[in-house]
Amino acid sequence: MKGINIGLIGFGTVGSGVVKILKEKKLLLKEKIGTNIILKRICDKDIHTKRNVSVDKDILTTDPYKIIADPQIDIVIELIGGIQPAKEYIIEALKNGKHVVTANKALLAQEGKEIFSLAKQHKRCIYFEASVGAGIPIIKSIREGLVANRFLSILGILNGTSNFILTRMSEEGCSFKEALKEAKDKGYAEKDPSLDIEGIDTAHKLILLVYLCYGKLFGLNDIYVEGISHISPQDLIYAKEMGLNIKLLAIAKKIKDELEIRIHPTLIPQNHLLSSVRGIFNAIYISGDLVNDLLFYGPGAGQMSAASAVVSDLVDLTQHIKAGLFRPIMDIVEDNTIHRLRKIENIESRYYIRFMAIDKPGVLAKISGLLGKYQISIASVTQKERKKQKFVPIVMITHEAREKNLKEAIYKISKLNVIGEEPVAIRIEEI
Amino acid sequence: MKGINIGLIGFGTVGSGVVKILKEKKLLLKEKIGTNIILKRICDKDIHTKRNVSVDKDILTTDPYKIIADPQIDIVIELIGGIQPAKEYIIEALKNGKHVVTANKALLAQEGKEIFSLAKQHKRCIYFEASVGAGIPIIKSIREGLVANRFLSILGILNGTSNFILTRMSEEGCSFKEALKEAKDKGYAEKDPSLDIEGIDTAHKLILLVYLCYGKLFGLNDIYVEGISHISPQDLIYAKEMGLNIKLLAIAKKIKDELEIRIHPTLIPQNHLLSSVRGIFNAIYISGDLVNDLLFYGPGAGQMSAASAVVSDLVDLTQHIKAGLFRPIMDIVEDNTIHRLRKIENIESRYYIRFMAIDKPGVLAKISGLLGKYQISIASVTQKERKKQKFVPIVMITHEAREKNLKEAIYKISKLNVIGEEPVAIRIEEI
Repeated sequence: MKGINIGLIGFGTVGSGVVKILKEKKLLLKEKIGTNIILKRICDKDIHTKRNVSVDKDILTTDPYKIIADPQIDIVIELIGGIQPAKEYIIEALKNGKHVVTANKALLAQEGKEIFSLAKQHKRCIYFEASVGAGIPIIKSIREGLVANRFLSILGILNGTSNFILTRMSEEGCSFKEALKEAKDKGYAEKDPSLDIEGIDTAHKLILLVYLCYGKLFGLNDIYVEGISHISPQDLIYAKEMGLNIKLLAIAKKIKDELEIRIHPTLIPQNHLLSSVRGIFNAIYISGDLVNDLLFYGPGAGQMSAASAVVSDLVDLTQHIKAGLFRPIMDIVEDNTIHRLRKIENIESRYYIRFMAIDKPGVLAKISGLLGKYQISIASVTQKERKKQKFVPIVMITHEAREKNLKEAIYKISKLNVIGEEPVAIRIEEI
Repeated sequence: MKGINIGLIGFGTVGSGVVKILKEKKLLLKEKIGTNIILKRICDKDIHTKRNVSVDKDILTTDPYKIIADPQIDIVIELIGGIQPAKEYIIEALKNGKHVVTANKALLAQEGKEIFSLAKQHKRCIYFEASVGAGIPIIKSIREGLVANRFLSILGILNGTSNFILTRMSEEGCSFKEALKEAKDKGYAEKDPSLDIEGIDTAHKLILLVYLCYGKLFGLNDIYVEGISHISPQDLIYAKEMGLNIKLLAIAKKIKDELEIRIHPTLIPQNHLLSSVRGIFNAIYISGDLVNDLLFYGPGAGQMSAASAVVSDLVDLTQHIKAGLFRPIMDIVEDNTIHRLRKIENIESRYYIRFMAIDKPGVLAKISGLLGKYQISIASVTQKERKKQKFVPIVMITHEAREKNLKEAIYKISKLNVIGEEPVAIRIEEI
């Protein structure tokens, strides 16, 4: 066999990283896999701007069908991102018998059902290692390394931008706005950062991890997603005094026959490994029935890091093609012991709560009385300042309580005339 | 194809874990890989003692050649440990055209050259995921997930027993002896714990990681190995005051055209992720030229955890056999830019040093004068007590110094008449 022909659609940051690796590591890869990976064609809307890698002009095209419809091409890499036209290109590529490598988490999370079933139907693979945690080989680890495991839980810090912002707020005491500005200045946040700070990007990634672990592809509307823009630095200071640190945590947990899937700002113990995941780093903390708790950690983004993952997918597919296997190397199997998603109202969690209440006798009794009425018991309570007849912060940590009860109790408490601004509640994850 | 036939040699703790998985996860594995894995025969010296999994008596044997010489068996799992007869069985299995799965780090580290080259010659694979970090898929990650990377460094906490002991010493202030006793009582240390506490087990694992990353299989005699039995709790307390924490660290580092490979008690910053790896947990912190720093973390031992890794190797080989590939899926390639090992005398490091010196004027001048003579500059110095004319601890942190110079300076200082017991020096790793 002369080699495996591949085509790249999307010659942007990650795309040019992939080209750079294929060029600079050509010999290393050849030696390792015994086959040449031949980059036959690159497609981009813009084929004139200089990239940080030089390529033969003849292989550049603006027409994706020069790749998708080329019978000599075995693998199509899609790195343009977004839903359309990426979806069209991937679908046509699969229909034409190509294997596909992509980093497009939004597309796979949203349109995965159609794409994955089409791949199966055409006996082709779609690989997406770069879509979660960039160069961290988390997808391969779940699919292959942990192949015999059933999964109990996934806890992930999956978005570098929001983790950078929360790290700055927590360590420097700056506001959300200030930290976001810094993230933008450093190139860690996009002009419109909403996908990152509202938890949508995290949700796309968690949807894919859940698919790999439990064999079910949920939609954005099925799961609870809460961003970080409402977090105040004051609460992070109080939480820190109680040994807690904040993270935008992606959580999937199997409890009996239900699965909880939720993304929200979460307080975790300061001495837990996940608490040391700072700045733009990502981590996945995963619990399998055989391996117990594993952590995978690394930079959550970066040109060469993501490109490294794309090339590892390419290499796997190359071996696959050489072997003449036309079935995904490892099928994703549904966990049939899961019967439903648990709604956010029904989860049980500990909570950090802050009320702004007038500093006068009897106020605490009123608040705790209402909490008690809703079966919420208090593990600790601290009044943070003393200012007679003024609003002062009262910070509480609850024992495990049902979300629905907590929300109702807080609503009732917020209507008391001794309470100032809106109360704050942040879930605590015991790990 | 009806299925892939396998034979297991060694029906001990991990072996019976493997049997349990193959039995209890039969359907899951079948669904994922599309093939049955058929456990055709189990060999052990003792086939009468009850295990925590029941098997058909007919498949038990005390004769390993019932497996090794059975033409119907495709894969042999070796889980008896030790050098002989494990080596003989593996070699005969390879010669008979079987693929091999093993967890035997000591054997592969010591006799790997012969075994790996024999496997290559016979076009068979030898897989050993369970040999490092139990269920952590570190070997697959290096070989496949990071396939396009060149490696800059590996830092590992690879032995649960010594990490448990150091964690207890550091957190509870107990002595090495007390911590070792506790480890024995809890079943974390063997009766003869020397392989663990002298760093040999860590060395075997590091040798395998270095082989995977750099394509060179070094011997125990090539590398520097220092155990933990001489560490005193007092030094851990002083180090902690300076923000440092102790770990038995396995270190491999590429510096220009040299490779440093060493295992020794090492002080690392308390706020580094590796510092949070407590008790019997393992972690591998690896730096690739494309992915930057990644961390893999999990329990370093455990029946089901190690068995999970063995089964993942089985599954990989099953796919391999189905495809009719008779070449290792991924060849290990030598890093030709490495020309030699750097001897321990030539490494450069920062050091923690403690002298017991008489508390009188001029002593510090003498010590620092000698250090200066050997080009060792001092970053900080603290005299820990005041007791006129008695021996008191003087603790120093040096800037980067060459090991040879440091050793000579310390030797000279130890001969001063103002110095009491043997000085202590512990290397500091800046991460």
